[in-house]
Amino acid sequence: MELLVSLSRDDVASTGSEAGPAAVRGTDAEAPKGHPLTAVVATGAAGPVASYDVLSPECPSRTVLRHVVDRWTPLIVAVLAQGPRRFGELRQAVGGVTPKVLAQTLRSMERDGLVLRDQTPGVPPRVDYTLTPLGASLAEPIAALRAWAEGNAEQVLAHREAYDRAHSRSEE
Amino acid sequence: MELLVSLSRDDVASTGSEAGPAAVRGTDAEAPKGHPLTAVVATGAAGPVASYDVLSPECPSRTVLRHVVDRWTPLIVAVLAQGPRRFGELRQAVGGVTPKVLAQTLRSMERDGLVLRDQTPGVPPRVDYTLTPLGASLAEPIAALRAWAEGNAEQVLAHREAYDRAHSRSEE
Repeated sequence: MELLVSLSRDDVASTGSEAGPAAVRGTDAEAPKGHPLTAVVATGAAGPVASYDVLSPECPSRTVLRHVVDRWTPLIVAVLAQGPRRFGELRQAVGGVTPKVLAQTLRSMERDGLVLRDQTPGVPPRVDYTLTPLGASLAEPIAALRAWAEGNAEQVLAHREAYDRAHSRSEE
Repeated sequence: MELLVSLSRDDVASTGSEAGPAAVRGTDAEAPKGHPLTAVVATGAAGPVASYDVLSPECPSRTVLRHVVDRWTPLIVAVLAQGPRRFGELRQAVGGVTPKVLAQTLRSMERDGLVLRDQTPGVPPRVDYTLTPLGASLAEPIAALRAWAEGNAEQVLAHREAYDRAHSRSEE
């Protein structure tokens, strides 16, 4: 049995508000406002199941997709997939990230349930980051994407070069 | 046999300059400057093969990764994986995208070699967009990522809610 349920933006916001104290990503606020979210809810033996669709602008799965492929999250997932890491180790493994942005991204990943922050008392306290089972389940699609990028970078660069050559010729 | 080759930023830029006339994404300019790219070049029977690594800040594969998971590219790939689409069809299928940004993203995807733009003469000319074989090879990792986002959105939203509750309690 299927029911078409229309959720307002407020309903969506109340389940995963980006305005919480720990919201660290301003870009979500760019989402168009006022579009209703249409979710298909099937009420079967296993209870209600919502059908998410990233192609729908108000569907929360779109925000989730954007979070997990933001600038640093895929790189952090790739490193933590090899095992727990301390903050400094992560910073070294993920080339080019500043401490501030790494801390923000880790906090956002912790909030999304991808990462566990494990603090051991001491002076200074030791902090380890570990992927949760949810975060670990993201490692596989991220690894496939990384393999694609690394395996096809040369081809993409060649395409860009050819495109730019053709483009500048046509402007002469 | 393996050789460690250090490329300067200028070497990298000359193979895939983001400063070309068709560069439509300013964010690439944010990449940290001055880091050397270390690439492992194996010279075997098949000729030299560069080893790309997205964890290296100056490796061009990092830019490639960021392009293919930018705001709209994954959604456009998901739609075009079902077959060629006209501009208006794409605009309708990818909810929330403006015509200007859709056109920019398609141009960037064309430049990267992911999409073919096929114009049929007429008034107005008909324009179809098709995934290239390279673009089609991206459809699978993108589909896995999309499935992850849609399948785990509910869990991520629940984590955010719990995190925000815990966080506001600890501030009382």
